[in-house]
Amino acid sequence: MTAERLREILARVRSGELSLDAGLAELKHLPFEDLGFARIDHHRALRTGSPEVIFGQGKTPEQIVAIASRLAQSEQNVLVTRIARDAAAALKQALPETEYDATARLARILRKPATPKAIGTILVVAAGTTDLPVAEEAIGTLEVLGHPVERLYDVGVAGLHRLLSEKEAITQANVLIVVAGMEGALPSVVAGLVERPVIAVPTSVGYGAAMAGFTALFGMLTSCATGITVVNIDNGFGAAMAAAQINTLRESHE
Amino acid sequence: MTAERLREILARVRSGELSLDAGLAELKHLPFEDLGFARIDHHRALRTGSPEVIFGQGKTPEQIVAIASRLAQSEQNVLVTRIARDAAAALKQALPETEYDATARLARILRKPATPKAIGTILVVAAGTTDLPVAEEAIGTLEVLGHPVERLYDVGVAGLHRLLSEKEAITQANVLIVVAGMEGALPSVVAGLVERPVIAVPTSVGYGAAMAGFTALFGMLTSCATGITVVNIDNGFGAAMAAAQINTLRESHE
Amino acid sequence: MTAERLREILARVRSGELSLDAGLAELKHLPFEDLGFARIDHHRALRTGSPEVIFGQGKTPEQIVAIASRLAQSEQNVLVTRIARDAAAALKQALPETEYDATARLARILRKPATPKAIGTILVVAAGTTDLPVAEEAIGTLEVLGHPVERLYDVGVAGLHRLLSEKEAITQANVLIVVAGMEGALPSVVAGLVERPVIAVPTSVGYGAAMAGFTALFGMLTSCATGITVVNIDNGFGAAMAAAQINTLRESHE
Amino acid sequence: MTAERLREILARVRSGELSLDAGLAELKHLPFEDLGFARIDHHRALRTGSPEVIFGQGKTPEQIVAIASRLAQSEQNVLVTRIARDAAAALKQALPETEYDATARLARILRKPATPKAIGTILVVAAGTTDLPVAEEAIGTLEVLGHPVERLYDVGVAGLHRLLSEKEAITQANVLIVVAGMEGALPSVVAGLVERPVIAVPTSVGYGAAMAGFTALFGMLTSCATGITVVNIDNGFGAAMAAAQINTLRESHE
Amino acid sequence: MTAERLREILARVRSGELSLDAGLAELKHLPFEDLGFARIDHHRALRTGSPEVIFGQGKTPEQIVAIASRLAQSEQNVLVTRIARDAAAALKQALPETEYDATARLARILRKPATPKAIGTILVVAAGTTDLPVAEEAIGTLEVLGHPVERLYDVGVAGLHRLLSEKEAITQANVLIVVAGMEGALPSVVAGLVERPVIAVPTSVGYGAAMAGFTALFGMLTSCATGITVVNIDNGFGAAMAAAQINTLRESHE
Amino acid sequence: MTAERLREILARVRSGELSLDAGLAELKHLPFEDLGFARIDHHRALRTGSPEVIFGQGKTPEQIVAIASRLAQSEQNVLVTRIARDAAAALKQALPETEYDATARLARILRKPATPKAIGTILVVAAGTTDLPVAEEAIGTLEVLGHPVERLYDVGVAGLHRLLSEKEAITQANVLIVVAGMEGALPSVVAGLVERPVIAVPTSVGYGAAMAGFTALFGMLTSCATGITVVNIDNGFGAAMAAAQINTLRESHE
Amino acid sequence: MTAERLREILARVRSGELSLDAGLAELKHLPFEDLGFARIDHHRALRTGSPEVIFGQGKTPEQIVAIASRLAQSEQNVLVTRIARDAAAALKQALPETEYDATARLARILRKPATPKAIGTILVVAAGTTDLPVAEEAIGTLEVLGHPVERLYDVGVAGLHRLLSEKEAITQANVLIVVAGMEGALPSVVAGLVERPVIAVPTSVGYGAAMAGFTALFGMLTSCATGITVVNIDNGFGAAMAAAQINTLRESHE
Amino acid sequence: MTAERLREILARVRSGELSLDAGLAELKHLPFEDLGFARIDHHRALRTGSPEVIFGQGKTPEQIVAIASRLAQSEQNVLVTRIARDAAAALKQALPETEYDATARLARILRKPATPKAIGTILVVAAGTTDLPVAEEAIGTLEVLGHPVERLYDVGVAGLHRLLSEKEAITQANVLIVVAGMEGALPSVVAGLVERPVIAVPTSVGYGAAMAGFTALFGMLTSCATGITVVNIDNGFGAAMAAAQINTLRESHE
Repeated sequence: MTAERLREILARVRSGELSLDAGLAELKHLPFEDLGFARIDHHRALRTGSPEVIFGQGKTPEQIVAIASRLAQSEQNVLVTRIARDAAAALKQALPETEYDATARLARILRKPATPKAIGTILVVAAGTTDLPVAEEAIGTLEVLGHPVERLYDVGVAGLHRLLSEKEAITQANVLIVVAGMEGALPSVVAGLVERPVIAVPTSVGYGAAMAGFTALFGMLTSCATGITVVNIDNGFGAAMAAAQINTLRESHE
Repeated sequence: MTAERLREILARVRSGELSLDAGLAELKHLPFEDLGFARIDHHRALRTGSPEVIFGQGKTPEQIVAIASRLAQSEQNVLVTRIARDAAAALKQALPETEYDATARLARILRKPATPKAIGTILVVAAGTTDLPVAEEAIGTLEVLGHPVERLYDVGVAGLHRLLSEKEAITQANVLIVVAGMEGALPSVVAGLVERPVIAVPTSVGYGAAMAGFTALFGMLTSCATGITVVNIDNGFGAAMAAAQINTLRESHE
Repeated sequence: MTAERLREILARVRSGELSLDAGLAELKHLPFEDLGFARIDHHRALRTGSPEVIFGQGKTPEQIVAIASRLAQSEQNVLVTRIARDAAAALKQALPETEYDATARLARILRKPATPKAIGTILVVAAGTTDLPVAEEAIGTLEVLGHPVERLYDVGVAGLHRLLSEKEAITQANVLIVVAGMEGALPSVVAGLVERPVIAVPTSVGYGAAMAGFTALFGMLTSCATGITVVNIDNGFGAAMAAAQINTLRESHE
Repeated sequence: MTAERLREILARVRSGELSLDAGLAELKHLPFEDLGFARIDHHRALRTGSPEVIFGQGKTPEQIVAIASRLAQSEQNVLVTRIARDAAAALKQALPETEYDATARLARILRKPATPKAIGTILVVAAGTTDLPVAEEAIGTLEVLGHPVERLYDVGVAGLHRLLSEKEAITQANVLIVVAGMEGALPSVVAGLVERPVIAVPTSVGYGAAMAGFTALFGMLTSCATGITVVNIDNGFGAAMAAAQINTLRESHE
Repeated sequence: MTAERLREILARVRSGELSLDAGLAELKHLPFEDLGFARIDHHRALRTGSPEVIFGQGKTPEQIVAIASRLAQSEQNVLVTRIARDAAAALKQALPETEYDATARLARILRKPATPKAIGTILVVAAGTTDLPVAEEAIGTLEVLGHPVERLYDVGVAGLHRLLSEKEAITQANVLIVVAGMEGALPSVVAGLVERPVIAVPTSVGYGAAMAGFTALFGMLTSCATGITVVNIDNGFGAAMAAAQINTLRESHE
Repeated sequence: MTAERLREILARVRSGELSLDAGLAELKHLPFEDLGFARIDHHRALRTGSPEVIFGQGKTPEQIVAIASRLAQSEQNVLVTRIARDAAAALKQALPETEYDATARLARILRKPATPKAIGTILVVAAGTTDLPVAEEAIGTLEVLGHPVERLYDVGVAGLHRLLSEKEAITQANVLIVVAGMEGALPSVVAGLVERPVIAVPTSVGYGAAMAGFTALFGMLTSCATGITVVNIDNGFGAAMAAAQINTLRESHE
Repeated sequence: MTAERLREILARVRSGELSLDAGLAELKHLPFEDLGFARIDHHRALRTGSPEVIFGQGKTPEQIVAIASRLAQSEQNVLVTRIARDAAAALKQALPETEYDATARLARILRKPATPKAIGTILVVAAGTTDLPVAEEAIGTLEVLGHPVERLYDVGVAGLHRLLSEKEAITQANVLIVVAGMEGALPSVVAGLVERPVIAVPTSVGYGAAMAGFTALFGMLTSCATGITVVNIDNGFGAAMAAAQINTLRESHE
Repeated sequence: MTAERLREILARVRSGELSLDAGLAELKHLPFEDLGFARIDHHRALRTGSPEVIFGQGKTPEQIVAIASRLAQSEQNVLVTRIARDAAAALKQALPETEYDATARLARILRKPATPKAIGTILVVAAGTTDLPVAEEAIGTLEVLGHPVERLYDVGVAGLHRLLSEKEAITQANVLIVVAGMEGALPSVVAGLVERPVIAVPTSVGYGAAMAGFTALFGMLTSCATGITVVNIDNGFGAAMAAAQINTLRESHE
């Protein structure tokens, strides 16, 4: 049916019923195909400028390899998040150009460099050593998306001097991703130092009253600093996607 | 002590110990004064480009009038959020130029127009009629901040045709604020239609399993669409502040 | 004692104390027998038109085999849900006609085809690849119950075009089962497109604010669309049982 | 814009570009208009066979009167749920044909009798006296929708003999709505007695561990009886809408 | 120090400062000794008529063996609850007279038969097969305590006829322990049939909205039937201890 | 229909089909009548030995008066719990013999003294002054039921000497009801001092982490002392009903 | 009985059976008297060095006046916390020397100055204006207890410069009470600046994800800074009592 | 950059721009170095008098060894908490002077004895055998910090005589750490017996309504005894750090 629809649109364009612009607009939202258990949308890259992304958690190695292989045929960049070590190994065997980052739990198959109209640098700040997997998930995603990125790690609020000594790096960034677990206070302090958007990422680091990240999540949502928005617990990928959209100058506004 | 510090900085600038730029940087973070129950930071406007903001909820009319009067002396714009009808009346009596919007629960004292380097238009989308107070809080805040803003209301996901018929307005915006209660699904659908940042605002509309807005909040945080970040329940003000920062081109990047 | 009661009823029917209809009514609710740890009700099929169902989770392979073997003697269809791989193997060894579906976690022993008075087709819609085990549990159950069933998978709300391109399949169904995790918004969107009953099944897919399926559950319960009812998290079996009852024309109403 | 679109569709039908059927299908999903704070969809009745419904809770009397007045101009049935006494009075003054039921918190403006193809009778069962407002909300809604409805009240599970003495009424119904608060056990017991769909409605009756209806809600979701689906706490309206859809024979299946 | 205190009391009795009765009263609450990690109170049996009980969960096999061995030296009955298979094996090796019940997760070392003044029989009722471990923990405990006990299993509320056919056994008992998971409705129904105390035991059986037993717990606490009291989730031991105290006629009331 | 059934049973007794005993058994569970919104069961007193009880919370004064008046015609004792001051006044006007206790929120209409076979005294222990309404609800209920009752108030665990100085009263009781809010530790300490059943009643006294009584409830359920069972938060009535059943010697065991 | 016990102890002291020290020790834990609804312990002051404290919330004005009047007869200091305006007025009428602080919700009747062996100054730090009632409850309590106290208000973490400019006051204190709502991050930052005990007091300030103070509470409990302990939400009184004990040098250690 | 800053400060001291005191103050908060994933602050010991502490949970053995090795080079004491057996083995291999306590889950590398100005003894009280790991974590930490410490174990509130027989040890301590799981009542009882600070540590011991330690946590926070402050669930380390600060006489107060 999709094929039919595609033909129909082109026909309408040829006949002049649709202008070229209208035709493009129609095409942008249309085509995908059916693998049985997952619909792949090859035009998505065209539409969103992003790589194809596979959320690895809860999928079998077989499913991941199947989806990724299909995507890889159309020369797109592919990013697999939350991928376990065994699934990454299976993927590498099937697609040898796979790069795997165990800390970030990311696998990447890069075919063509991304060229976003990035406004500035994205700074990823992390409170503690145990927050690194989430911070690195954000960084690995931003690299695929082609945005300039810098790291600032181990600057928890209980030792303010560490954070304050890096104030210049903080105020230089165009967008900040701030990763913190436990009480999740770091984004409040960072947002009080800058005038740029801060995306807060709570992590599930901690125990007891840390409530698997909900205390950090709720703390960030109720922050007394302005300019903070929040993503799901441990969602470094989502923070990177949002930061990249903020850091990309819209075509019509160039 | 603050005064002393101020004099010291200026002295160091005059002596050449500090460059003009360094002096400005120091000043940007320094001065505030003590009212007894609330420290007012007159340089904050200089620092963040924002008006002075008073969170009205939980403060007595007397406290609001006292803080606002003090701020108004230094010719700044003042915004009071979550202000009750009686406190707004007291404020208007004390400061007759006060404008009050009962739906948005905002009072504003505007002294000089804000002139941000806005990149584009901010679109505020709301799912239902009962979400209006939160949406209008965002709009009233954005107006004070000087950003171009448009409304798109009553476009809940159970009647997709309403939303889809406004697709052009949606894809034109540079930043989107999407306000929804109950299951909070609207931001997912909207974010699937655009490539720009979407700030999701859950509302406490609903009953029972709506859990006073937590269901919408959690739904937005777990959205399967990318580019969504989230603020606290009913926090139209916070969404506007974040949207304005995203929509402002940083000076060094002009 | 049950036997005595049975004889007594038959005797009262023979003696004319009970009419044939009254006798049947009595029999319909009566007999079961005692295995020690589980009472088996052989007349249940007669009473509800369903196969005998064993909830496998939390039962040992030995218990499952014992209950299933006893049931299989009376020539009934048997369905075991949430059965682990090892228990399924044990069951297959004991009862070789066992069919096992690992994705759906179902084992079936089919003796006689079910012949319900089905009104129409039941469509099972699933948002993502990770929701498949729950969707397949529903489908496997509906097949045992003898209802016509169709699949529509990978049509999440963040890519509306996928869903809308299948609108015809959606509007053709007599009953819809809609399976979704994360924010659980799919049933709202689907129910907005049809005028038929929608049974929403939240899944435990997701992390953090997905709260192991409670966010999807609460989102479905607070849906702004009408005609939606909800079952427990991951309960594909329960959704299928309810859908089958809805899709069966009551004898007295034929 | 909607008007333009409407003209365009009709034009396409006249020109033969669209068949009559296709034209109807297009129209079914199209038109609505903009009141500023609520989009009204006059074709909705045509599309779903339902009256226009206004959720009164959280709306001001002024908003309710404005929306209802607009709807009433197009000769549709209007149902306002969760309407407070003062809003109902205002509505009656504006639209004197308004009928108000204080127990059910419903206001109705009936213009033309509904004529659904009802399959059988819908039985509304309630556990206790305090569950009545929710049960009556369901009944008042079903009456507007034109379905045959019967009541069975005060039959809690702690006095089984009350329930069992009405077994005939229970087994006669085509669909059952079972309303219960506290431990919410009634739907389990009722569903064990029938082979028809049971829609369970938890109520916020009770205190302490009743958790404002969540204990009943969760109890119903985990019921060991089959054929039960659940709606939100206190949602008698939603249960009625779902029951009506189940009790309506689909046109193509007549 | 304890020893000193003991000698002092005896001395005061000999000297006549304390009567024999007063001496006994003092002794009843006094002595225990210190193993380093657990104080053992050998007079506890004298004081409460119960065996010494060790809660096995969270203790290492070594700790269990050490405590049990010490207790066994003073010829008391010893009961270990929630004991894992490996700890039970270690215990049996150290104390060969150990009896182990894997279903109930109990180990018992019985030295002298308990002889309570039992008033009647305690009936343990269980809803489903998966509730057995908890029900058997109660039964195993009651056997050690020397109370007459009977079982009634697999009588869930969705099949009322099973329960009602055993009404005689139910009304004969002096105390009832009713074990149920999921919606936990069984105690309400049973308590509606009897005039004797019902101790309800919620189990962690179920998934999703069963909330690991909290739904059953809250349902039992909000039961509309009277005479029900509740113990912790899965706490068959606690239910048995309370039932035994209720079923024991106080000496002064014989 | 009930009347028919009643006649039928009597007829079967007269005809000898039913023995006198069997006839009584049938009658015990049968009759009640229908007031429209509440079924009244006049034989309940016969069946359970209790007064008729009306749960006043959530019922209108009109409903309470109607139900109570109907009950009062059949010369039974009537107890209304959680009755508000205005409803009590309305009841007193309709039935002048009504006794009202504002602290306990109980109204009583006593027609004939209750004569249970009480085994001993029931002691009601309360931790603090704010727990009194719940404790008095228990005492007022026990008085209607005819059981000997004593009070022990203001003996919180932070001042152990207060409690220990009353140890004799504590050890004399046959059943104990222990009422406590905040951390709810009192039942643990009391149960450690006695060998009789302790019914723990958590109260909603406290703020913040007291969680409206849930902390006390959960504390009581996890008590390390044996013999404790628990009722719902603030449920003094339920505790009294359970205590009375425990304190009543079953006829067959006299 | 208490009186008898008192006489007995004195007698034993006179007879030499008890030394003077032993006699004092006995007396220290013994006497209190019974007002019917509240036991008053006149020796408590002797025992703990504190005033008598009445928790006003949930008590009627009559109860507060009765307890306070009784206490005032024995020339002790009396402190009533969480006292409403009307109860304070009633208390002032009964005991004219009552001092009332409406912000702190405290009433005090001071008879003799407290003279603790205070080690240093206690600093009360508060994040925002809305946290003042809790901070002032702590300060008012500390004043009654006789400890030197200082205030530092409106120093939230989103404006670090405010806090850092007061670093000298912070490092001078011997004990710190830090009061904060919303994300509750202030204690972490303060504790990172000092080497003295920090008592964190979460407040119920905020909305939505602030969860009525639980987010601040959990944030403080999971703080990454050391030396922090926490009290209940809004419990300024409890923080003051603990701070006073820490700030008092134990007699044996002088 | 840190090095530069250090040189600059020293230079300013030499030039007389900074006094010696001011120089020390600057140094106290300044230096740390960057390992890539964790900033190590060698001056922290100087600043807080504490050893360097590594929170082992969630860190890989490799990360722990790397951080500890770096710290060990500067001759400081190092404490690793929540360290797993395999990480401890790796640490011992790298740094043979490592001492490991498996019960307390602590590893220690001690280089120079700590010499705090301890005021008195710290008593660690534990309710049950399963609370030992948490109690020993506190004790092991206090030993590193150089404070005198004593143990009092297995004194739960259900057997008050055990606790009361140790009253002397309890009243001798200067600070008390009270560790308890389940209902967490022990700190209330202990705080009622002393006039010194009590730090309560809830443990995750228990099941069901124990809610993994939250019931104990909330019970301790709502304690009716005064002088209690609370730390996170299972946080023996944090309790020890806070107790040590309380038990240390501030230099300026010696």
